[in-house]
Amino acid sequence: MAIERRGILFVVSAPSGAGKTTLCKELVAAIPGVHSSISYTTRKPRPGEVHGRDSYFVDEGAFQDMVQRNDFAESARVYDHFYGTPRQALTDMMEKGLDVLLEIDTQGAMQIKKKFSDGVYIYILPPSIDVLRTRLIQRGDAPEDIQRRMQKARQEILNYREYDYIVRNEDLKQASQELQAILQAERTRTKRVDIGWLERNFITDPTSI
Amino acid sequence: MAIERRGILFVVSAPSGAGKTTLCKELVAAIPGVHSSISYTTRKPRPGEVHGRDSYFVDEGAFQDMVQRNDFAESARVYDHFYGTPRQALTDMMEKGLDVLLEIDTQGAMQIKKKFSDGVYIYILPPSIDVLRTRLIQRGDAPEDIQRRMQKARQEILNYREYDYIVRNEDLKQASQELQAILQAERTRTKRVDIGWLERNFITDPTSI
Repeated sequence: MAIERRGILFVVSAPSGAGKTTLCKELVAAIPGVHSSISYTTRKPRPGEVHGRDSYFVDEGAFQDMVQRNDFAESARVYDHFYGTPRQALTDMMEKGLDVLLEIDTQGAMQIKKKFSDGVYIYILPPSIDVLRTRLIQRGDAPEDIQRRMQKARQEILNYREYDYIVRNEDLKQASQELQAILQAERTRTKRVDIGWLERNFITDPTSI
Repeated sequence: MAIERRGILFVVSAPSGAGKTTLCKELVAAIPGVHSSISYTTRKPRPGEVHGRDSYFVDEGAFQDMVQRNDFAESARVYDHFYGTPRQALTDMMEKGLDVLLEIDTQGAMQIKKKFSDGVYIYILPPSIDVLRTRLIQRGDAPEDIQRRMQKARQEILNYREYDYIVRNEDLKQASQELQAILQAERTRTKRVDIGWLERNFITDPTSI
């Protein structure tokens, strides 16, 4: 019987090319009880992406209807597309005691932080700015995209103070381990423990001392 | 090259019989860069204990001299003996960027917390109050000692809110893993990162963006 506690919201941001997607996949595979939040987006699915698993792929009309109904915990335009995090799915999971992993850019993360101040905010750094550029070149991004992403990375990294943790992805195995450690550690934080459970089990039962 | 940061003080408390000593030994063995603080005490060494490795075993006169010289970050009387944590050794290690593990009872931990508010305070819970009593019986403690330790445990556990993390030692392997995760996670906290290092490497270098 584990210590009873509420679900935790883990928010992970990183500049494009820092390895966030790989790290988050490994995290969900390695740690039971962590579920990815699935975002809505107006961008087209990439090869292999599945509607309802990777994202909910919707057209702009459907997206704007959801904005109007206040269905999103945050939504943002990133480059030419809209992205939104469904509010209800997030809170439903947390109320069940499940932890939620939200991969999101800095502007979205800052919106989420206003509403979920109890969440855990993690920023993934590339090994260096030079390595970031090299990775973007190697994955075949167009030069103007690289330029744009590098500028965005620089702006984003300036916001690092808004995050609780900084994981530097120099070595994938090490970074993956650090990210997992953050999840496990946060689960044991005193402020997350169900106080009623603790007091019933350890303090108030007069027959057991 | 890891992210540069200051040394962290990890303070671990637990009721007698909760498994703190075993957990801390495993921690130091598993995680590089964590060093145990060695306390001064007026109690006699137990079989196998070595002066300068397990504790500094001193007589009461020498101990009180150190109290007078303000050599202790904290000192306390626990049952019939005095215990003290040498201040200089603690700060020396942290200034070198080394992490320090301090195993200490609740009253000592609360003294330390006043001086080292940036430390990480971890409380280890036994699986239950009943298991704690059984463990004390099994290790052959005298009935009056058991009674005294159980009362102390109850008082101590009431202070759990003063700690940042609560690790429940129901399964040694699981608890050990959680404790290690806390150390690793705390090393990646934004507030501990050397800001100068981060800005030099990621933000202010105009030639690299």
